[in-house]
Amino acid sequence: MSKNLLNILFIGDIVGEPGLSLLDTFLPSLIDKHEADFVIANGENSHKGKGINRSIIKRLYDLGVHVITGGNHSFAKWKVFDYMKEDGNVLRPMNYPKGNPGYGFGIYDIPDFDQKIGVLNLQGRTFMQPIDDPFTTADWVIERMKEETDIIFVDFHAEATAEKLAMAWHLDGDISVFVGTHTHVPTHDARLFPNGMGYISDVGMTGSFDSVLGMDKNTSMNRFKLGTPHRYRLANGNNHLCGLLTKVNLESAKCEHIEPIIYPSFNSSNLGD
Amino acid sequence: MSKNLLNILFIGDIVGEPGLSLLDTFLPSLIDKHEADFVIANGENSHKGKGINRSIIKRLYDLGVHVITGGNHSFAKWKVFDYMKEDGNVLRPMNYPKGNPGYGFGIYDIPDFDQKIGVLNLQGRTFMQPIDDPFTTADWVIERMKEETDIIFVDFHAEATAEKLAMAWHLDGDISVFVGTHTHVPTHDARLFPNGMGYISDVGMTGSFDSVLGMDKNTSMNRFKLGTPHRYRLANGNNHLCGLLTKVNLESAKCEHIEPIIYPSFNSSNLGD
Amino acid sequence: MSKNLLNILFIGDIVGEPGLSLLDTFLPSLIDKHEADFVIANGENSHKGKGINRSIIKRLYDLGVHVITGGNHSFAKWKVFDYMKEDGNVLRPMNYPKGNPGYGFGIYDIPDFDQKIGVLNLQGRTFMQPIDDPFTTADWVIERMKEETDIIFVDFHAEATAEKLAMAWHLDGDISVFVGTHTHVPTHDARLFPNGMGYISDVGMTGSFDSVLGMDKNTSMNRFKLGTPHRYRLANGNNHLCGLLTKVNLESAKCEHIEPIIYPSFNSSNLGD
Amino acid sequence: MSKNLLNILFIGDIVGEPGLSLLDTFLPSLIDKHEADFVIANGENSHKGKGINRSIIKRLYDLGVHVITGGNHSFAKWKVFDYMKEDGNVLRPMNYPKGNPGYGFGIYDIPDFDQKIGVLNLQGRTFMQPIDDPFTTADWVIERMKEETDIIFVDFHAEATAEKLAMAWHLDGDISVFVGTHTHVPTHDARLFPNGMGYISDVGMTGSFDSVLGMDKNTSMNRFKLGTPHRYRLANGNNHLCGLLTKVNLESAKCEHIEPIIYPSFNSSNLGD
Ligand SMILES: [Fe+2]
Ligand SMILES: [Fe+2]
Ligand SMILES: [Fe+2]
Ligand SMILES: [Fe+2]
Ligand SMILES: [Fe+2]
Ligand SMILES: [Fe+2]
Ligand SMILES: [Fe+2]
Ligand SMILES: [Fe+2]
Repeated sequence: MSKNLLNILFIGDIVGEPGLSLLDTFLPSLIDKHEADFVIANGENSHKGKGINRSIIKRLYDLGVHVITGGNHSFAKWKVFDYMKEDGNVLRPMNYPKGNPGYGFGIYDIPDFDQKIGVLNLQGRTFMQPIDDPFTTADWVIERMKEETDIIFVDFHAEATAEKLAMAWHLDGDISVFVGTHTHVPTHDARLFPNGMGYISDVGMTGSFDSVLGMDKNTSMNRFKLGTPHRYRLANGNNHLCGLLTKVNLESAKCEHIEPIIYPSFNSSNLGD
Repeated sequence: MSKNLLNILFIGDIVGEPGLSLLDTFLPSLIDKHEADFVIANGENSHKGKGINRSIIKRLYDLGVHVITGGNHSFAKWKVFDYMKEDGNVLRPMNYPKGNPGYGFGIYDIPDFDQKIGVLNLQGRTFMQPIDDPFTTADWVIERMKEETDIIFVDFHAEATAEKLAMAWHLDGDISVFVGTHTHVPTHDARLFPNGMGYISDVGMTGSFDSVLGMDKNTSMNRFKLGTPHRYRLANGNNHLCGLLTKVNLESAKCEHIEPIIYPSFNSSNLGD
Repeated sequence: MSKNLLNILFIGDIVGEPGLSLLDTFLPSLIDKHEADFVIANGENSHKGKGINRSIIKRLYDLGVHVITGGNHSFAKWKVFDYMKEDGNVLRPMNYPKGNPGYGFGIYDIPDFDQKIGVLNLQGRTFMQPIDDPFTTADWVIERMKEETDIIFVDFHAEATAEKLAMAWHLDGDISVFVGTHTHVPTHDARLFPNGMGYISDVGMTGSFDSVLGMDKNTSMNRFKLGTPHRYRLANGNNHLCGLLTKVNLESAKCEHIEPIIYPSFNSSNLGD
Repeated sequence: MSKNLLNILFIGDIVGEPGLSLLDTFLPSLIDKHEADFVIANGENSHKGKGINRSIIKRLYDLGVHVITGGNHSFAKWKVFDYMKEDGNVLRPMNYPKGNPGYGFGIYDIPDFDQKIGVLNLQGRTFMQPIDDPFTTADWVIERMKEETDIIFVDFHAEATAEKLAMAWHLDGDISVFVGTHTHVPTHDARLFPNGMGYISDVGMTGSFDSVLGMDKNTSMNRFKLGTPHRYRLANGNNHLCGLLTKVNLESAKCEHIEPIIYPSFNSSNLGD
């Protein structure tokens, strides 16, 4: 079969064991159902809500994930630092300053295809740490990536919707797909940008929704109400997977289709129609 | 007809003339189509992207809006301050400190119904100005509102998803509907909370999406790339309305149905199926 | 002897053992030299740079401290929470929300005097947690304190110089002395305000100055340069005490004299004059 | 006369006409009194509290200022942008991203000396805009400057004391003098660092102290108390000049003496001794 669309499945921030268990149960069949050719997952919260470790990385690979992106929690667990220097499929935001371990982008073979895909992980600065400029970082990295492939997928880990949209307008025309991560809430604005880039402000999280961002809701309420530190604990219950399916034209490198996946879907009606 | 569901239509942050024109064209027919009994709209950006004025307020009333909520831009235009003291249907966040003009909540007759609805506008503090605590404010105001009605609709204008969810868990069981506003991006998490509250993290905006949050995208990109001030201008083009329809049981005051409305829908596929 | 001036000695944020050791060595003789009648010390960083514990509290009392104030690190060590409920001489900022342990102000007997002194601890919100409004908190607490004494000493623990000065103008005329804490850098603006309040923006810290704010300087540089978390360690070396001597008129409750104490003084010249 | 010390006078943030008038009256005699060989002034607030213009620049040159540094308000008045491209003696922070007008450092002849001095203006990021990294910027700029002179003076315009101290430790050994600006409050920690750098956390401001940071105190109090925007106005009254005198050894390029200048001095005692 001559197929000219590449199906990329992205999994939003995996939060601890509830998120990982969901993936154990559903990811293989989702890959199957959507005929996903390449799977990327954000793993910055996969280890108890903060950071990642080697056994989780292996577990995700075994489930069919090809590349794992990160964010502001990528550097939470120092034990994984050495590993991050070796494994080019585990990314952390590229615009952390030189001197930090790990890779911020990679060019990967697409299984069963004769083409490559580039994945770039960036992080915003508004309401976050003042690291290097993600805009100029994107400029030079994408130029380098384009020497090897035009199919480029960007995970921009950022808090502010304005920064996500400004970056999206900056990148439209140069990349195939832009996904936002970090807020842990899926957005309802998946769309095609004028120059062929697939866009979503945030893919959302994969974990417990009987929670605040995957963590115990009572702790979070106490932090807001009392203003004092209270130790976070992982939540469990009402677990959902938030992902995104995109279809990229292999000749034009443009995105032809973008579709959020929330599984199982949220309960939004008692009216039965 | 004995009807026991109240249909409430909420319109997300209206950004300038593009948003207002959309409402001119579509709001009456949307009200009709969804048989909306009560219409609430967030107007904090309706006047050129920042603030509101008397003629816009009148225009919204004429289109069928019953209550106008606000946010951090409610105090942008001082000319409207005197008006805000008179008109209890134009709200601004309740938890701005005493001494500021305007109302933060109201109890309103529902046309053609024998019941009342309470609307409360609150504002978050994470990544925003440090105003009064929205949690304790909610507590005493809602207690007072409940003396008059159990049907309570809250617009929580906030940046951080964690603060929105913490507030939602705090209010579930006490109110009928919780909507988030301010990020100008609609979220895909509309759902019913365990104790019967309808919830969405953000309704999104009503205005130009060929933009960054409704404002000129080049200005926004310059601000992010250069770090220096550049004057905002309103954007236009690719205009969409982001709203939310909720159905509240008049006996239990619980939300039975919650459904985002994005009109026209975003272009998310070229594949024609 | 009929003495009508009250000498109050304040010690700026004590940072860990280097700060405590300095006090062991010098505080009794400083009290003696300046004939201090009442001694207040900020202890929020006294336990390894973060928080305080019972044995440090006892140690400070034994050295002649009457009241210990706090700040954003007051709630760092939960083991001291129960103690804070019992001992009214250990304060934490008053404007932390209800539900937190501890006292935010107290009225104390002045040894050898027939009068009382009130001490109030407040915390700012600019660039800090959004706790309760320190301005309205100050208003009602000071009114209550004035039922018992007009001699009121305020430690305003805050980051932004603008917030400190705004609060100072708000309080001048109502209190005797205003000291700022938290930045760990002594300011050179000790002065008398027009209505008789002694003012300094920040008293500075008591600890190692071969450091960044009392903590290991290499860790701090790494945090700024790399943008990633690195574990703080206490610094040691080039230890200085930063304090403030104020003299308050017992009849008028006005401050007559304000004088920073930095001991030993910093090395600012090799020129020998 | 063979003189081997270079006397550098620095003037802290000049806030509007009250600051400028003070300089008209006192700067020439201060230069004379302290035998200042080179004069640098921070002018970011000289035009009505925000920005600078051509006539103020000329006025400062006429008063004996050789170099004018800036900060976050350097880009407040676009009319001066063209001028900033021409005049290498008006600096703005070097680490604003490429694409912004103006110079961030310069190498200048010292009048009556056979040596040059380099002046570098940097800006912090903590609690400020996320511009380029001041640490790496300092590294490459100072290396380039050292090709021409070892006498280097840095104005680090920053909010957080931790960032100022981290930068100071980073630069000690490479430069002659480090001054902090921006908080508008003079600090009491002028000292010599171990490797010969003169240091002060903040020089303070030159303007009205019957104010909040040089601006009307009632406006500022309203902003803090009400949380809403109120238009800033310049203050006047109780005007003080905050400056710093440093003496740099021309052979070693090390700072031998550092001394704050506050003129007139603050009123800190009614006791007459
Ligand atoms: Fe995350
Ligand atoms: Fe994150
Ligand atoms: Fe808005
Ligand atoms: Fe807003
Ligand atoms: Fe402290
Ligand atoms: Fe502190
Ligand atoms: Fe300034
Ligand atoms: Fe500044």
